[in-house]
Amino acid sequence: MSTPSLLWRELCLFDGLSTLEGPVNLLVADGKVAGLWPSREFPESAALGAIEAGRGGVMTPGLVDCHSHLVYAGNRAGEFEQRLEGVSYAEIAQAGGGILSSVRATRAASEEELVEASLPRLDALLADGVTTLEIKSGYGLSLADELKMLRVARRLGQLRPVRIRTSLLAAHALPPEFAGDSDGYIRLICEAIIPAAAAEGLADAVDVFCEHIGFSPAQCERVFQAAQAHGLAVKAHAEQLSNQGASALTARYRGLSADHIEFLDEAGVQAMAVAGTVAVLLPGAFHTLRETQLPPIELLRQHQVPMAVASDANPGTAPICFPTLNLNLACTLFRLTPREALAGMTAHGARALGLPELGRIAVGATADLCLWDVQQPAELAYAVQPGRLRQRIFNGAITYRKEEAGHAG
Amino acid sequence: MSTPSLLWRELCLFDGLSTLEGPVNLLVADGKVAGLWPSREFPESAALGAIEAGRGGVMTPGLVDCHSHLVYAGNRAGEFEQRLEGVSYAEIAQAGGGILSSVRATRAASEEELVEASLPRLDALLADGVTTLEIKSGYGLSLADELKMLRVARRLGQLRPVRIRTSLLAAHALPPEFAGDSDGYIRLICEAIIPAAAAEGLADAVDVFCEHIGFSPAQCERVFQAAQAHGLAVKAHAEQLSNQGASALTARYRGLSADHIEFLDEAGVQAMAVAGTVAVLLPGAFHTLRETQLPPIELLRQHQVPMAVASDANPGTAPICFPTLNLNLACTLFRLTPREALAGMTAHGARALGLPELGRIAVGATADLCLWDVQQPAELAYAVQPGRLRQRIFNGAITYRKEEAGHAG
Ligand SMILES: [Zn+2]
Ligand SMILES: [Zn+2]
Repeated sequence: MSTPSLLWRELCLFDGLSTLEGPVNLLVADGKVAGLWPSREFPESAALGAIEAGRGGVMTPGLVDCHSHLVYAGNRAGEFEQRLEGVSYAEIAQAGGGILSSVRATRAASEEELVEASLPRLDALLADGVTTLEIKSGYGLSLADELKMLRVARRLGQLRPVRIRTSLLAAHALPPEFAGDSDGYIRLICEAIIPAAAAEGLADAVDVFCEHIGFSPAQCERVFQAAQAHGLAVKAHAEQLSNQGASALTARYRGLSADHIEFLDEAGVQAMAVAGTVAVLLPGAFHTLRETQLPPIELLRQHQVPMAVASDANPGTAPICFPTLNLNLACTLFRLTPREALAGMTAHGARALGLPELGRIAVGATADLCLWDVQQPAELAYAVQPGRLRQRIFNGAITYRKEEAGHAG
Repeated sequence: MSTPSLLWRELCLFDGLSTLEGPVNLLVADGKVAGLWPSREFPESAALGAIEAGRGGVMTPGLVDCHSHLVYAGNRAGEFEQRLEGVSYAEIAQAGGGILSSVRATRAASEEELVEASLPRLDALLADGVTTLEIKSGYGLSLADELKMLRVARRLGQLRPVRIRTSLLAAHALPPEFAGDSDGYIRLICEAIIPAAAAEGLADAVDVFCEHIGFSPAQCERVFQAAQAHGLAVKAHAEQLSNQGASALTARYRGLSADHIEFLDEAGVQAMAVAGTVAVLLPGAFHTLRETQLPPIELLRQHQVPMAVASDANPGTAPICFPTLNLNLACTLFRLTPREALAGMTAHGARALGLPELGRIAVGATADLCLWDVQQPAELAYAVQPGRLRQRIFNGAITYRKEEAGHAG
């Protein structure tokens, strides 16, 4: 357990909520941040026995992506192309497209196949700085297939140096075998899927899609009650396409987060503020769907509801595995400041997962860190450019180093 | 000169204009595409002496990015942040921000410093498939500094395996020392800068910014005349913020391309169609500026004006060095089909540079190629995910290979 400590010098440091004045030196030991000094006040004795790990650049907490649907089989590029070539949504749905095509492909895939399909997407997130990632089920929609997805999510966390948090999202869409009987499917979720996921320790939280094309607030509330009966935290896809009061409902159940929230009203914002429910902004879906209704950013600021920013990585409405692009989209489309966007993928993203000890850089904090080849934190949201991550530190160890340019010629 | 030939099997091939039916085998020798067969008709004798370079995946021409401002010093992340924090454009301009801050930083930088500043951006483009890149001057705005920028652009082409085409864009903005005397600056361009750039062989084309905040059509025409007198092709930043008739003017001078063109009208489209002037679409700037006026895509289709798609990579209005994101933006924002977007960064991008022999895959063509880890070409525009380029082939040699996942833990 006594790996040598690591020392970085002359960092510009964003601590998860704001940027520190002046350069700092940072020492990591035993998986934790062990020391943090203004560079000019650094006691050189603290460097004794430490390996010099780097100098200069911007250090941020490892990115926390608190909302993803990373595990699925197939993709929907064909539909994307058809729509742009003029095929209507109705025709695509009639031909078996849409979310149910992802359900079919995911049900047909083995755990091993799902791992293989998901790893390149996971690797893309890690290469852009993610150290903690939430992954939802929701393309299985049966007891066996929802548990299969959650097992795959857990397995990804064993295969790569990343913290995975899982959310059971059985209430994502109505499976075809329950057509006309959504209450029957909700019963299956509450009486079979949630208990099984809880018993196997596969779910860290339970999520719902509360929308006129998803499930009603009353149905979602039954899911929340079953989740809490099994000791699981809750959260919701809320107010994405219409105001259903799902955020207030989630707040009433002391939910971790209400996500999307384009149509959230002030009453919902107030309920979230009181309950400590985090607002999760998903600008990738907003971009892909060419939405125009903006989430109520100013109200969220006024009521001091923490705003997280996440990828929503999914095959239908956000096929985007590039978290710093989500920072750019949050600023460009939602008018977040770069500081708010970065806090949204660090401190507030962690809070949305019920892990407030992550997403911060302070003495004693877990050493999940990113070192970026930029000069100021705002650049991460301003420019869109892969390859700016110089090092990724997970649990105190450097698990990624930018290769020297891979050009042979 | 007798490097062994390279063979790829079972490719899904996008040839620059469309996707071939069924898998193909492709042979490269002496820098050219030497053979192309449906896989099932492949004569195995053709594999003799060839190295097996890969199997499966999507092969496209190397990407041709026909409009970039890649060479500059400094960046404008600070301004980006200030604007989002509520500082007005006027205040930023008064504090020396905007394009003139890039001019100041670029003037102050040495050639070596400009090379160093530009290489990470270039490497990001190459890692996402670019094999031919246009780079403009336009942050020097003096004889010495414009030539310096063009020399840096040429130097980048020596340092990396990429074809660089340069455009002299002295008519980008009015330098402060010519305040109130834009005609005087146009005279400097026509009588000193163009002749010098031509004499040193530093410019492949001459570009202008024709706009009420740039230069008038009459001034641009003088620049075009000087360019043609020195044997240089012309092109324009046209109709980005208003309809100035710049595209028709460019067509009259048999210009290579008219770029941006959000406010282009049907008369301009017709003039371009007749002259063979390419329409260059720049969705990255459209995104960054949150523009709402769409370029006349349907008119361009009707009149069969070839549409290129380019990055516009620049520090102010498109700090984006990720060409497949530009494909996504072209589809999502401009409603191009994935096929049109890909043709826009291959065959039509090459045509916009006056290099119609590039951007295509056919027997005899230059072997600038990309092999992607996707299953169908549309995925390149559908999903936004760094790291999907498996191999980049430049002039018949593999100059980039995706590293095995760089994860140590
Ligand atoms: Zn979601
Ligand atoms: Zn431009």
